[in-house]
Amino acid sequence: MTQKSAFPNVKNVKLLPGFWQRLQKLNRDITLPTEYEQCKNTGRLDAWKLEWKPGMPNPPHIFWDSDVAKWIEAVGYSLALYPDPKLEAKTDEVISWMAAAQQPDGYLNTHFISVEPDKRWTNLRDWHELYCAGHLIEAAVAYYKGTGKRTLLDVMCRYADYIGKVFGPGKNQKHGYPGHEEIELALVKLADVTGKDAYLKLASYFIDERGKQPYYFSQEAVKRGEKEHVPAWMNSPANILPYAIFQAHLPVREQKTAEGHAVRACYLYAGMAGVAKHTGDQTLIDACKTLWENVTTRRMYITGGIGSSRFGERFSFDYDLPNEEAYAETCASIALVFFAHNMLELDVDSRYADVMERALYNGIISGLSKDGKRFFYDNILASTPPYYKFSQQKSPERQAWFGCACCPPNIARLLASISSYLFSSNDDCLWAHLYTSCNGEFTLKGSTVKVTERTSYPWDGAISFAFKLDSPVRFSFAVRIPGWCTNATLSVNGKPVSLAKRIRKGYAVITRTWATGDKLELNLPIQPQRVYAHPAVRQDDGKVALQAGPVVYCLEEADNGPQLGAIRLPQDSKLALVKGPAALGGIPVIQAKALRQCRKEWDADKLLYSNEKPRFDSITLKAVPYFLWANRKPGEMEVWIWE
Amino acid sequence: MTQKSAFPNVKNVKLLPGFWQRLQKLNRDITLPTEYEQCKNTGRLDAWKLEWKPGMPNPPHIFWDSDVAKWIEAVGYSLALYPDPKLEAKTDEVISWMAAAQQPDGYLNTHFISVEPDKRWTNLRDWHELYCAGHLIEAAVAYYKGTGKRTLLDVMCRYADYIGKVFGPGKNQKHGYPGHEEIELALVKLADVTGKDAYLKLASYFIDERGKQPYYFSQEAVKRGEKEHVPAWMNSPANILPYAIFQAHLPVREQKTAEGHAVRACYLYAGMAGVAKHTGDQTLIDACKTLWENVTTRRMYITGGIGSSRFGERFSFDYDLPNEEAYAETCASIALVFFAHNMLELDVDSRYADVMERALYNGIISGLSKDGKRFFYDNILASTPPYYKFSQQKSPERQAWFGCACCPPNIARLLASISSYLFSSNDDCLWAHLYTSCNGEFTLKGSTVKVTERTSYPWDGAISFAFKLDSPVRFSFAVRIPGWCTNATLSVNGKPVSLAKRIRKGYAVITRTWATGDKLELNLPIQPQRVYAHPAVRQDDGKVALQAGPVVYCLEEADNGPQLGAIRLPQDSKLALVKGPAALGGIPVIQAKALRQCRKEWDADKLLYSNEKPRFDSITLKAVPYFLWANRKPGEMEVWIWE
Repeated sequence: MTQKSAFPNVKNVKLLPGFWQRLQKLNRDITLPTEYEQCKNTGRLDAWKLEWKPGMPNPPHIFWDSDVAKWIEAVGYSLALYPDPKLEAKTDEVISWMAAAQQPDGYLNTHFISVEPDKRWTNLRDWHELYCAGHLIEAAVAYYKGTGKRTLLDVMCRYADYIGKVFGPGKNQKHGYPGHEEIELALVKLADVTGKDAYLKLASYFIDERGKQPYYFSQEAVKRGEKEHVPAWMNSPANILPYAIFQAHLPVREQKTAEGHAVRACYLYAGMAGVAKHTGDQTLIDACKTLWENVTTRRMYITGGIGSSRFGERFSFDYDLPNEEAYAETCASIALVFFAHNMLELDVDSRYADVMERALYNGIISGLSKDGKRFFYDNILASTPPYYKFSQQKSPERQAWFGCACCPPNIARLLASISSYLFSSNDDCLWAHLYTSCNGEFTLKGSTVKVTERTSYPWDGAISFAFKLDSPVRFSFAVRIPGWCTNATLSVNGKPVSLAKRIRKGYAVITRTWATGDKLELNLPIQPQRVYAHPAVRQDDGKVALQAGPVVYCLEEADNGPQLGAIRLPQDSKLALVKGPAALGGIPVIQAKALRQCRKEWDADKLLYSNEKPRFDSITLKAVPYFLWANRKPGEMEVWIWE
Repeated sequence: MTQKSAFPNVKNVKLLPGFWQRLQKLNRDITLPTEYEQCKNTGRLDAWKLEWKPGMPNPPHIFWDSDVAKWIEAVGYSLALYPDPKLEAKTDEVISWMAAAQQPDGYLNTHFISVEPDKRWTNLRDWHELYCAGHLIEAAVAYYKGTGKRTLLDVMCRYADYIGKVFGPGKNQKHGYPGHEEIELALVKLADVTGKDAYLKLASYFIDERGKQPYYFSQEAVKRGEKEHVPAWMNSPANILPYAIFQAHLPVREQKTAEGHAVRACYLYAGMAGVAKHTGDQTLIDACKTLWENVTTRRMYITGGIGSSRFGERFSFDYDLPNEEAYAETCASIALVFFAHNMLELDVDSRYADVMERALYNGIISGLSKDGKRFFYDNILASTPPYYKFSQQKSPERQAWFGCACCPPNIARLLASISSYLFSSNDDCLWAHLYTSCNGEFTLKGSTVKVTERTSYPWDGAISFAFKLDSPVRFSFAVRIPGWCTNATLSVNGKPVSLAKRIRKGYAVITRTWATGDKLELNLPIQPQRVYAHPAVRQDDGKVALQAGPVVYCLEEADNGPQLGAIRLPQDSKLALVKGPAALGGIPVIQAKALRQCRKEWDADKLLYSNEKPRFDSITLKAVPYFLWANRKPGEMEVWIWE
């Protein structure tokens, strides 16, 4: 049975001290101000003043608007939970520039207003106009929800209304769609907050028009006087189908595999699921499920990273998950969380929340340094420092900023809104998807239900929920039993409850009349585990990964010395969780007796190849959470260990 | 004790039916004519008529001369052994164009005569003038030796004389050296054949000047009005030292590791060894030995491939030998053979011949298809066909030609001259380095020594040498005991000879008075072997390679089905040599009981990650010689197998 649900407003769930509150505070105190400075120093903010004139240096770039938009979105979420008049005033100023920059017809884009005013809507394929519009819409919605202020929301409604006139099935309308998807999911949010069906229809139009032949991108290219074929850089290195990089090779309902640029793909899929949530269009739901399955059962790293190929930042083929050459862009994993989020609203099934959890605890927060100031764009799963100098791998150290700076503000908006991902509900049921200490307030059967959750998750699996209601209400409370957990236990008011018959699509469902003082205790024992990849993942054959709870671990040179590849973790070696190094906050690390292949004789005899069987020394291996890697001095790292 | 030796003229050793004769015939009958047609069809031959005028299409490219030169060189060797009046007439015609094209001052280069006459010698760094000159010199020497005709030799002496005026230490001379080395080793050959010391001095000049500061390449760039820094593409992706890509970052005697473009590097090193052979300069010999050791004990594939990084076609760092991303250009392994060849003349030591053999039987001839018509530029050690579409890997199928077509004629000239690599000698000793059926004629102590060698090597290790002399002569005959062989046996005239005390630098030396009828029989049992890589080669940890004699084997999808990575060869599984498939000529293949990880349950449950230990099915694995891979329908391949 399919159960729909809705996630709450970010305001409804307030984090308490714990894993995610620490990150959310870091985001508020360090990351958001750092990103403001970067936007200011690089010209991204001042671009909105429209003071750039031809001949001046540093023209507003086609994707700058999106960076500022994501920052405002993050601020909106942050202000919802943590009032900050100074930050709000700063942001209002930027929004006032945006309002002033809006053109009489509603158009709003710094590059195409200041730099190339004659090129508006002439290259949807490459020029990111609709992508920037989408991010500005998301910013407007978040800022409105967080502050109640309508300025940006009104601006963006006008812009969206204008876009709705330009694009559509009409004879005088453009039958186009974005080269970089994003606006689809944003328009669903705008429809939600304004109640206007037109925005939903526009989102549907962009989704349904996509991939039809003759290709809009070809026709548009010919109009620009260019060849209709995709230019070489887009084929980089070898496209299979024209426009697959943009997910525009086929109508979306005919797409059976996740192709092309991974961020674009998952933004699109999230938009599709968002539209389907409203329309109930089963063909679109089926398309979403097919693509979800392809992404998550064939093309996803153990870290929740997606888009394995750095050539095109794209999906490659089933079971191709290179580790050292991984791309796994931070934004792509965030987009996967958005996709999971909208799928959970369509159909509550732990397969979605499991992936959401996997991405959040691993391949997304690996994108942020421990001090909140530096970022990974790509999230490799193995690193040998000199290698990046001789490959297309980027630096194996986090960077302060990027020319194309999509990832930093994407992390910021996700952390600022993370509390809204923990629970979803409908009238009969409240689902707990992710676990962290918090206070939540929900409405079930017309009554307010308050829940206080306490846990040290993911370092400890004991989780308690205490209820507070004005009067008793009968509803279901459903707690997710993560895919990694095989020995969960549950009690209600101290009485053990058998899980066996209560599991529905991965959630233990407790249906009863809940009253103030009721307490549900869930235990998800956190034990170190060995994880194997599907045998067709050639890069991981013969190897094992380590996980404890949802956290994927890795070996770092700082703990294990160099030449991690020579470390072998025998199958019978016991794994133990022990207190980790102070430099990483003392969180638990995995320890095990292991072997290291000796090199002494090889070095003495100057051998590169030999018939001698490998010989080993005994060592103690120490694995740390993957998301914390590269926070000490640069060195080797690997997730998949020779077993 | 260091023993010098000299390799014979190609004429002195004639191949008999066997492994190399088959390839040499294929080269003569198919490859050379194919390459002639390619040179003709692409304009490379007609370029010599100097008919190209500005505005015409297809201008002679800066490296075209070298392709034609290598083809002529190959023809020269071939004519030495197999007279062919038609081929000779065709070649003479091209040479007549070359002679006519030579400028009054001696200069000769189609591009800089026809296309950019004002740019002569203005960009040694990038424009390959001295590189083309080097190849033309090698062609001239080979054609003279093969046919006795001096036209091209005289042309090239004039050109070399002119180059010697342009470059040198004099006040009015350019203190430059080539961006792409090659002329150094060519000048040594020209000195050898003409007896003129000036050519050796010019080679020395280029070698000694290299890497001095201020950098010639910087000064030259400034003169062109460019920035002195290396342009970005040369830093691709990240140069460590300026000009390391050209081995011009330091004076050659200060270079301790093999850096940069691997073909250039080994052409340079071969040139250095060639000069040192004549001058006896110990500092240069030491430099050669240091670089040899770095290349062959830290940066060489098991196939003899070198230059592991495709970004810059370059050496990367110690023990970095990626398999699927390997570059290992065919030309680079050929250059390594030239380096080995000159080192063997300096100091007969089987370490050089072992590497020569490794490269010849594996990473070089893998560059040529079974039908002699198609070529690999890069020689990967693992292939999963869709991967190349999403990476910078080139096609995993051999190609008919390349825009930059250095490899095809390089293979041709090597195969045409292969007989000259089998033996070297000095007055007291004849060394057998490589084994194949042939008739050789040498001079020792003033007497002619004829040797007939019979063997089915590398498929069978029984090798016999029968001597014929006008009168008995006392000298040493030294046969190489390959590094891969631990149980060699030897007999002279049927009487077993103990090897133990007769091994000198890897050669079993038999010193006696040899007379007609004497027979030496060497047996190098060919058994399948497991080979491991140094533990620091992270890409091969946990893996094993298979070898039989000098031949490295690989798994192909054609024999083993897809998903080769899931195949595991347990350490106790016995290897057997069995008759191989007819499609590969029935040569022996390696067979063994092995395991394949089951995927049925993974697929049934749509799992990508799981805690379940790997489970296996029993299979029989079949490995074929690496050099024969990709001669059947396209499919997966791997050299390093999960053990």
